[in-house]
Amino acid sequence: MGEILPLKKLQGSEDTHFAKTGDTRAAQDNNGEGAFERLQEMVASDMAEVNEIILRRMESPVAMIPQLAGHLIASGGKRLRPILTLASAKLVGYEGRRHTSLAACVEFIHTATLLHDDVVDESGLRRGRKTANVLWGNKPSVLVGDFLFSRAFELMVDDGSLKVLRILSAASSTIAEGEVLQLMTSNDTTTGEEAYLEVITAKTASLFAAACQVSAVVGERPEAEELALQSYGKNLGIAFQLVDDALDYSAAQEALGKTIGDDFREGKLTLPVILAYRRGDEEERAFWKRTVERQKQQDGDLEKAVALLHRHGTIADTIDRARHYGAMARDALAIFPASPARSALSGVVDFCINRAH
Amino acid sequence: MGEILPLKKLQGSEDTHFAKTGDTRAAQDNNGEGAFERLQEMVASDMAEVNEIILRRMESPVAMIPQLAGHLIASGGKRLRPILTLASAKLVGYEGRRHTSLAACVEFIHTATLLHDDVVDESGLRRGRKTANVLWGNKPSVLVGDFLFSRAFELMVDDGSLKVLRILSAASSTIAEGEVLQLMTSNDTTTGEEAYLEVITAKTASLFAAACQVSAVVGERPEAEELALQSYGKNLGIAFQLVDDALDYSAAQEALGKTIGDDFREGKLTLPVILAYRRGDEEERAFWKRTVERQKQQDGDLEKAVALLHRHGTIADTIDRARHYGAMARDALAIFPASPARSALSGVVDFCINRAH
Repeated sequence: MGEILPLKKLQGSEDTHFAKTGDTRAAQDNNGEGAFERLQEMVASDMAEVNEIILRRMESPVAMIPQLAGHLIASGGKRLRPILTLASAKLVGYEGRRHTSLAACVEFIHTATLLHDDVVDESGLRRGRKTANVLWGNKPSVLVGDFLFSRAFELMVDDGSLKVLRILSAASSTIAEGEVLQLMTSNDTTTGEEAYLEVITAKTASLFAAACQVSAVVGERPEAEELALQSYGKNLGIAFQLVDDALDYSAAQEALGKTIGDDFREGKLTLPVILAYRRGDEEERAFWKRTVERQKQQDGDLEKAVALLHRHGTIADTIDRARHYGAMARDALAIFPASPARSALSGVVDFCINRAH
Repeated sequence: MGEILPLKKLQGSEDTHFAKTGDTRAAQDNNGEGAFERLQEMVASDMAEVNEIILRRMESPVAMIPQLAGHLIASGGKRLRPILTLASAKLVGYEGRRHTSLAACVEFIHTATLLHDDVVDESGLRRGRKTANVLWGNKPSVLVGDFLFSRAFELMVDDGSLKVLRILSAASSTIAEGEVLQLMTSNDTTTGEEAYLEVITAKTASLFAAACQVSAVVGERPEAEELALQSYGKNLGIAFQLVDDALDYSAAQEALGKTIGDDFREGKLTLPVILAYRRGDEEERAFWKRTVERQKQQDGDLEKAVALLHRHGTIADTIDRARHYGAMARDALAIFPASPARSALSGVVDFCINRAH
């Protein structure tokens, strides 16, 4: 793995954006370090309530359900999506209690998606622990995922707003479409950047967008704010997934206790490979066709793949693309007055892009 | 397979229930023959609309989705669940148009469940055609199932009634719990009749119940009628599943183009086996433990299993249990005045119990 460069080296140090928007505190830590912790602190008491709701709604007389769902939910992850719902509620000055249930709902949708993703992807490690699928088998992952989806819908229904229901159920449909689309572009080296963007917008960014947007809805904010939060979430989600896909080929990933090369082994066409295929010569394209399209892989192929990505600078370029969407996400927040919540949400963009350090 | 008796021989010819309730037309064909066709005719124009809604809502820019979902939905099946919604709407005199969308929603939930069931069950044939799973692989079945679930929720949300949403989303949660519970009782010969009933009530009867109940809700009928339709659907669903589980060991099944012994091969504890295990001697119990609990099966085991079920009369007794729930379903309809819809719904009970001929 010696050929795999740490991500840090690949990243530029421009990012004077915050100074331009006058958001000086965020500019002080514009690499996002500390921003996520600040956000976590800001929503800590709300998050305690979200955790209670999650535990309560996971309950079932069927013992395997809380066991399996609990495994995934206790392993924690960053809880980034529910945090976005809570922070967006703070941003718009919402003072009610509906946002915590919706944050739990968003986390349930995300967890269900992970469970179903584990079934189909055979990825070895997630969040540094064995996946539910490896521990429990395919069947429970499908069925407990279904249970969590259903509970997510019950949480939405209990909220009682048809508008919220429409936003979250549409996001859920879009995620499923995105997953199928991803499947169809797997093993297909003709996949272009546009098709790739369509996949990640659907499978990842749509839930980020909905997670933020619903807080403007419960806060009864004007449509412009709702659309701004939707745009923030969507662009943050795209940036997040771009970085994720770059990390899958990066040594920085290993520091997080995750395996690298999962996407490669599965023949997933992500941007680093899409760009390398296009920029490569005939011999390189033959390599990608064999390994990713026909999935005939042998020892040393992953190392060779990583070397090709570096030769064409496609991991760094993928991060650059992420910066573009990150900038759009930050600009979407500009219509809100400066506030600790706005600074923290801005900082999360950098956190997502630089999280690999 | 010579040992497998046709189901017809196992069934009694009592069933004077209809005469008691004065429902003479239904009594004339109390074996249910013709009742289902009559019901289909009665709701034919509504069903055409349901089919249009299904086709429209399956549309997606992602080509695989309508392809795969279309395969399952076009293969048709009986469309029993949406027919129940439509017929229940007729029963309560509902004159609006909301019931057709809800019927489509119910079919989507059912189809999604089938897709996810195929993933986990590796059953060879369903409805006499290759399952989606065999044709397309596990991944698309999980993901297209998720898509259909989401579309089902969008249909509910479009309906706009929180009460309808609550009923259908709760049914959806209950189905998922039932599927997990079934998984936990698989390969476990200590499973009793109570646990089995809990499984089939959750995984099958809850959707039948919701399919009927929602029509009373959109018809704005008194609670007593809502509960009556819920009870009719629930008990019909239990009877339906009991017969299904009996059919899995019956020659009549083969006439429908389905394989027999799927449950046996998967080690599923259904009532015929639960009863045979309890009634069997030590040697027989050892046989069930080997084949169903440890799933060490060899040639001739299925035939031997079927012979044991017949020796203890457990297929016939399973059908008898179904008759009990069927009787409760019919009695639940008694609060409605006699009408062609009531006769047809009554007849469906017999159709479900006798459908194997």
